[in-house]
This record gives sequence, C-alpha cells and structure tokens, in this order.
Amino acid sequence: MSEGKKKEFDKKELKAKIEKATERLSLLERQAREAKIPILITFDGFSAAGKGLQINRLIQAMDPRGFDVFAFGKEGEESKMHPFLWRYAIQTPADGRIAIFDTSWYRHVQKDLFDGKTKESELDDAFYDICAFEQQLIDSGMVLIKLFLSISQKEQKRRFEKLEDSKETSWRVNSNDWKRNAQYEKFEKINENMIARSENKQAPWIIIDANEGETASLAIMLAVIERLEKALADHAKGNRSGKYTGPIPEKDQYKKGILSKVDLTKSLEKKEYKEKLDKLQKKIEKLHSELYRQRIPVVLCFEGWDAAGKGGAIKRLTSHMDPRGYKVCPTPAPNSVEKAHHYLWRFWNNVPKDGHIAIYDRTWYGRVMVERIEGFCTEDDWRRAYKEINDFEAHLIHSGAVVLKFWIDIDKDEQERRFNERVINPAKQWKITDEDWRNREKWDRYEEAVNEMIANTSTEAAPWIVVEGNSKLYARIKVLKAVVKTLEEKIEEVEKVKG
Amino acid sequence: MSEGKKKEFDKKELKAKIEKATERLSLLERQAREAKIPILITFDGFSAAGKGLQINRLIQAMDPRGFDVFAFGKEGEESKMHPFLWRYAIQTPADGRIAIFDTSWYRHVQKDLFDGKTKESELDDAFYDICAFEQQLIDSGMVLIKLFLSISQKEQKRRFEKLEDSKETSWRVNSNDWKRNAQYEKFEKINENMIARSENKQAPWIIIDANEGETASLAIMLAVIERLEKALADHAKGNRSGKYTGPIPEKDQYKKGILSKVDLTKSLEKKEYKEKLDKLQKKIEKLHSELYRQRIPVVLCFEGWDAAGKGGAIKRLTSHMDPRGYKVCPTPAPNSVEKAHHYLWRFWNNVPKDGHIAIYDRTWYGRVMVERIEGFCTEDDWRRAYKEINDFEAHLIHSGAVVLKFWIDIDKDEQERRFNERVINPAKQWKITDEDWRNREKWDRYEEAVNEMIANTSTEAAPWIVVEGNSKLYARIKVLKAVVKTLEEKIEEVEKVKG
Repeated sequence: MSEGKKKEFDKKELKAKIEKATERLSLLERQAREAKIPILITFDGFSAAGKGLQINRLIQAMDPRGFDVFAFGKEGEESKMHPFLWRYAIQTPADGRIAIFDTSWYRHVQKDLFDGKTKESELDDAFYDICAFEQQLIDSGMVLIKLFLSISQKEQKRRFEKLEDSKETSWRVNSNDWKRNAQYEKFEKINENMIARSENKQAPWIIIDANEGETASLAIMLAVIERLEKALADHAKGNRSGKYTGPIPEKDQYKKGILSKVDLTKSLEKKEYKEKLDKLQKKIEKLHSELYRQRIPVVLCFEGWDAAGKGGAIKRLTSHMDPRGYKVCPTPAPNSVEKAHHYLWRFWNNVPKDGHIAIYDRTWYGRVMVERIEGFCTEDDWRRAYKEINDFEAHLIHSGAVVLKFWIDIDKDEQERRFNERVINPAKQWKITDEDWRNREKWDRYEEAVNEMIANTSTEAAPWIVVEGNSKLYARIKVLKAVVKTLEEKIEEVEKVKG
Repeated sequence: MSEGKKKEFDKKELKAKIEKATERLSLLERQAREAKIPILITFDGFSAAGKGLQINRLIQAMDPRGFDVFAFGKEGEESKMHPFLWRYAIQTPADGRIAIFDTSWYRHVQKDLFDGKTKESELDDAFYDICAFEQQLIDSGMVLIKLFLSISQKEQKRRFEKLEDSKETSWRVNSNDWKRNAQYEKFEKINENMIARSENKQAPWIIIDANEGETASLAIMLAVIERLEKALADHAKGNRSGKYTGPIPEKDQYKKGILSKVDLTKSLEKKEYKEKLDKLQKKIEKLHSELYRQRIPVVLCFEGWDAAGKGGAIKRLTSHMDPRGYKVCPTPAPNSVEKAHHYLWRFWNNVPKDGHIAIYDRTWYGRVMVERIEGFCTEDDWRRAYKEINDFEAHLIHSGAVVLKFWIDIDKDEQERRFNERVINPAKQWKITDEDWRNREKWDRYEEAVNEMIANTSTEAAPWIVVEGNSKLYARIKVLKAVVKTLEEKIEEVEKVKG
C-alpha cells in the first residue's frame, strides 16, 4: 500500500471505530441512567488541547436530556467568596445524570498555581481537600472519570497562532496562555506533580495524547466506555457505595460517653440572664460588622434533642445581627432533588460566602444520627461519614471559615416536661408531632450515636461544644459566649496576619 | 402631663403595640405556612432608611426556618449577563415560604436610573416588564408586599455622617449615596414616578415614614399583618389564584386552525439533505462564535407531537456548536421543588446568559397543553398563561435575546408508524411508554390546544415556526435554516447599532 493509501485506510478505520464507540456509549449511557448512576467526567489539561471539540464529540453519543456541560473559567466574584471546591460541588450530578466539567477543581492546583493565584503554602491543604472530596464522590456511588488532555509545546503554539489569526477566535488566547507556552516545562512539571499527588485507583487519571484530534476522540470514548462498563457491572453485583474500612468500636463502647457527664443542674437567674444577654448581643452586633469587613465566613451548627431549645438559642444569637449578613438554614427531611444528590450537596449549597454567617438548624450530622438510626443509609455509609464530615469541615476551615458546633443537651424528664407544655399551650402545639414522641422512644440509641459522633468529629479547629440545656437561660448565654469568644479570637488572628 | 412624661408614656405605648403586633404576626406567619401561601416582602426606598434594622425587627416575629432574606446590591457579573428580573425571579418563594428582598427589581428603575446605568429609553419596557411580572406572581397566589421606606434629606445626611464616623460602618456610604442626597429632589421625583407607574391594587405600595425607627417598625408590622389577614381570608374562601378576565373564544373555534393547513407532503432527498446540513452546520458553528462575541442570548423552543423528531432536530442543530456555549434544557414532569414554585420558575433558572444558547426540549408551553388537558391547572390558570408567556418572552427580548419557537408537526398515521418502529427496534424501545399511547388518544384535544396556543402566542418578536415533520430530513433542514436566518439578522442588527 502506498503512504497516501495507507493514511486514507487508517482514517477510514478510525472513523469506523469512532462510530462503533459512539453506538456503544449511547447504549451504556442509557443503562447508567436507568441504573440511576451519577457520572462526572472532568476535562483538564493544556490550553488549546481541544477540550471543547472533544466534549462535543463525546456528547454526540448521549441523549441531550441526560447530561449537562459546565464550563468553569477563571473564578468569578461568587466563586472567589467561597471555598475553591464550592462551585464544583454544587454542580455534581444527581443520580442518573451526567455532568461534564470543562476544567475542574484541578485548575486550583494547576493554572492558578502557575499564575500565582494559589500559593505554594496552600498546596498541601488543597491536595488533601481534593483527594478527600473525590473519595467522597466515589464512595457515594458516583463514577468519576478524570481526563487529562496533553499536547506538545509546538502543537500548542501552532494552535494559539491559528486561533489568533481569526477575529472570531482571537479572544480565546490571552497573555497567560502564551506565558504557559513559553514556560512549557515548568507548567508540565506542575501537571506531573498534580497527577502524582491526586492518583486514585478508583478514579485514575486518564492521559490523552491530544495532538491528533480524531485519535484523541477515540481514546476518550474508549476510556469512558471502559469505566461505564465497570460501573454497570459493579452495580449489577450490588456494589454501589463504598465500604467502610476503618476500625469498628467495641460493642456498647459509646453507650456511656460524654453525654453522661453533662451537668444539667447548671442554671441562670432571669436578672443575670438579661444583663448578660444584652451585653453579648451588642458585642455580636459589632463582631458581625467586623467579620463582614474582614471577609471571614462563619459556620454555626446546632444539634440537640427535640425541644432542647435550638430555635430559642438561634433567635437570641441573631436578634442583633444584620439580616443581610446571616442565614438560618433549616434542615427538614430532604426533598426529592436533595435525595438524588450526595448527602452533603444540599449543605454545599448553603456554605456561607466570605463575611457571612450560616447558621444550620440541624446539619449534616443527621447522617450519623437520624439516618443511622432510621436505616436511611447503610452502616458503611454512616461509618464512613465521620471522616467525610471532618474532611468537609476541614475544607471550610482551610478556606478561612470559623466552624462551631453546638450540641444542646437536656435530660429525658426535661424533654417530657417541654413536650407536655407544647401539647397544652395552643401557641406551641404546632411544634409537637407524633414523630417527636416516637423519636423519644429511641432516646438510648440516639444517646449512643451522639456519644460516638462527638468522639469522632470534635476536632481542634471545629470542636463540639456541649451546652447544658435544662436551663434555657443558661444555655443561651453559653452559646452566645462561645460565639463571641471564637469570633474575637478569629478576628484578632486575621488582623495579626494582615498586620 | 409634662412633655417629658408624655414622651415616655408614648414610647411605652409604642413598645406595647410592637409587642402585640409581633405576637399577631407570629401566628399569621404560621397560618400562612400551613396554608402553603408564598409571601414576598420587598424593601425599597432611600439609602440609610434603615432597611436592615426594619427587616431584622420584622423577622423577630417569624420562625427562622420559614423565611429567607436576600440582599440584592448592585448587579454582579452573573446578573449583568441576564435580564434584570432574573436574579429576583429565581429567588421568589416556594409555597409556604417567605422571601424578604432588601431592595427589589425597582432598583433598575430607581437607583440604576439615577446613576445612569438604566437609560431613559429603556424605561417603558422596564415598567411594562415589572408590572407584568408582579401580576404573574399575584395571580399565582403569591402575597406580594411592597414597602417603600422614606426619610428626609436632612435625616439621610445625618445618618450618612453617623455611618462615616465609625470605621465599622463607614464603608456603607459611597459617593453615589452622597450624590443622591445632594440631588434629593431629583431622586424623589424618580421615586414618585416609579411608584405612580407601578401601582397595583392587589400589591399596593406601602409608603413608610422611616425618619423615626420604632414608629416605622410598627407601621411595617401592621401593614404586613393586614395583608396576611386578607390573604388568609381569601384562602379560606378558596380564592387563591387569579381569575382570567379576557375574552373567551367561541366553542370549537380552534378545532380547525393552523395545523390543518400544514403541508406534510414536503420532503427532502438524502443527498440534498446531507449537502444542506453540512453547509448549515458550518454556518451555525461560526454564528455561535459571533453570538458569543456580541453577547447575544438565544432561546430556542422545541415543541411538537410525541415522536415528531424534536430530539433529532436538536442533535443536528447542536452538533457543531461549542458545548460550553449552549445548554439543552429538558422539561420532564416537574419535581417537588419545581411544583412548589410558580410554573415559570424552573425556566427562569435556565434563562441563558448573554452570548449563550438555551435550547428547551419542551417548554413553558406545557402550561397550555399538557397542564390544560390533564387538568394540572385550572382553566383560569391556562387562559391567563397566554399573556403571561408572551410577557415572559417579551422580557427576554427586551434584554436583547433572540426567541424562536418551533412546532414540529406530523400526522397521526406518521406518529403511529414511528411508535410501532420504536416498539420493534430494541435500540429505540426505551423511547416509547404507555403514556405516549395514552396521549395519542387525546390527539384532537391537543390539536385544538395547539391551534389556540399558536394563535395566541405567535408574536412578531417571538414567532412560532411550524415545521412540516413527516419527513425528518426536511424538518431538520427547515429548523436549521430558520435558526441561521434569524441569527444572521440579529447579529447584523447588533453590529449596526454598535456601529
């Protein structure tokens, strides 16, 4: 065969292979949708590697009603005011959907690092957060496919020049692109380091030689096909979410724990309460303004027994705050959209912006309390959740947030007294439901779960504060005091750093 | 009584009244929640009128789990790339929830007008859009409470100076604030004009004298109480959504209509199809890039009989587009979150940014087709919807969008042929459901509804294009041609304006 003929033959063969792959992919996509498997495909790599083109070829095989493409450019105003994973986390796919990310969180440890937006000193935390985040997605049953599109320095230069040649496309190339081309080796090193530090056997990096478009398309399709086939096979075997592989505590280890040591006799007189309340609320008003100026995000978590006084404490906490700077996030039973996502997804959606306060009335800890006890998730799920939650909070803290968690404690008699009061008082009847009485019957199991939860998730940066709640007045003051103290310390710390 | 004693007495009385109002409000809020009434309270007015303080006092009466406060400052990156109502529309409350807006869409015809961001020439459209938008919310059963907080020039100056005195608050005052204070009369005129042009009996403006904070608080509470009492009384009487008051067509007027005149014999040969397709797709690729550069948003709507070929047409339309610049928005049965909102809400959420294309696979026209025929909304609801939809599309057009609507038509025999093909073909079986066969039985009623819909909603700026679809090839080319033609015209128009 002559050289020309050989080329033509190869091209034809390639085209036929792509067609076959497209057909196969189309079928697998539908099966994955029916199996309700969420799929996340990320495209990273070199500028002008042809991500747009490759994504378009890939989606030709898919039902346009089943996927979403998200183009993440450089961070905008909103993203900059949130942890760097935020804008990606809120777009992770629901069960049965495909999300395609045109550049992913890796931008933070790649381009943004090269461009100096991410500091070297932040890298360790960033890689930790990325690896933890990916593991969570994978363990929740998501198929994560990470593609890295690579082209040579010469080819990149050729493509930049071609783009610049036409007025329709010249805006696509900027000076940073040229800088990365000029310092190709430096950028390549960053990529190599990035890939090495984020390897995950369940979501391995797939490096695509993208110097030649058609060959790259086929390689991408085959990679996606392989992963989908594996996921569907796993699914058929019933292997969906991740196994918990850590240590299992001894039986009854947490029957007795921190809650048994809480001194519920602590109380406060009305007069002292009023004086302290007034002083603390005025302090909070000022601190809230300071937080805003210093752009510190604050996460305040409230958990506790039914009728422990979470609502009342939140009310006193917020009464002097500027309503434009805080948000109370209630946590009712998840709706159908929330249920179709990772359990942390709905909380990601309420992560506070810099300078804002998010107050969660019940939280992600539902995973290891109600979901555990009611069997809404598997044992593997809730056992994994302690680490997942610690990692989630760590990410918030890495991005500058204050995280405080309150467990408001009361004893069983006090709860009964309050329940009965609610039954009698017409203004409070709406607060009490049959479910409250049913939950009460599970007191001991909850106590065990709470003991285990606090033991496993009270970290230095995000400690649990157990609040003696039999006296509502005492409890409210303790909460306010803790918030004031922590905020004052944080503001001082930030001011010191800023100098 | 001495002057001093009188003052003290008045103050005490005011405080008692506020306390009573707080209690009343608390009860009404709960009742409104139980009745699933959505409530939207907007705060507009003069800078430093104390909106933050007043909002905080108001929400003290409410369960923090029942409301959200949204502070809308000047438009950010995202908002600027959308119609001005967009950022507000996507935050309108769900059934049973309260949304409080710290400044609303009125900013666009008030501060932004004063500051020169909104042009005088845009005002007529803007007021039309605002009034139509509010009427839609009201007619859907939402309680809309519009508060305008007024202070005198002198008082405003005093407050600005006080804010500037302290480092914690000085950032709240900017040069535009001072400019509006200096030109108080001019700004007042703008406000008067705004209020006059947007009066609505069902959501009247409530002007609050905010020179004195406590008196203002009471006035606000009483106003909200009055509106909630009325809404609850209406609700108890079963008056929830708005009546349709326009003309009713004669019986059977739309039995025969535009669909009976469609020439379904039109067809296209494969060879000609391929040539034309190739040419058109290449044009679209280029036009898509131009759209992006010129920041033109595009809305393409696809409706048609089941199996008419919407999916196939969309596929050919998008195959050469950059996947980062368009989005296919499927419209399945609404989920629980969508059902709890205004029926246009989920579409607002997908309104394209400037420079982007949104392709809706089925649309808001479901309101006057499936929802009408299946009884998912009342007759008043779908009869009102023609105007509501026209107004919604008009707003998109006012903000620079291209809106095109395709009805892909086939006849009943062709549909049967395609259904049967789907039944036999294993690769297509998933596309056919029992519901498709059931809908087919309602063909005549759908035909009547479609005739009426096209007659009522084909506007000059957003025309319906009826596509002869018995020949898939012919239909696809007709769709692509129409898109190319419209986009070319729009780009030319925009370039002409820019000069």
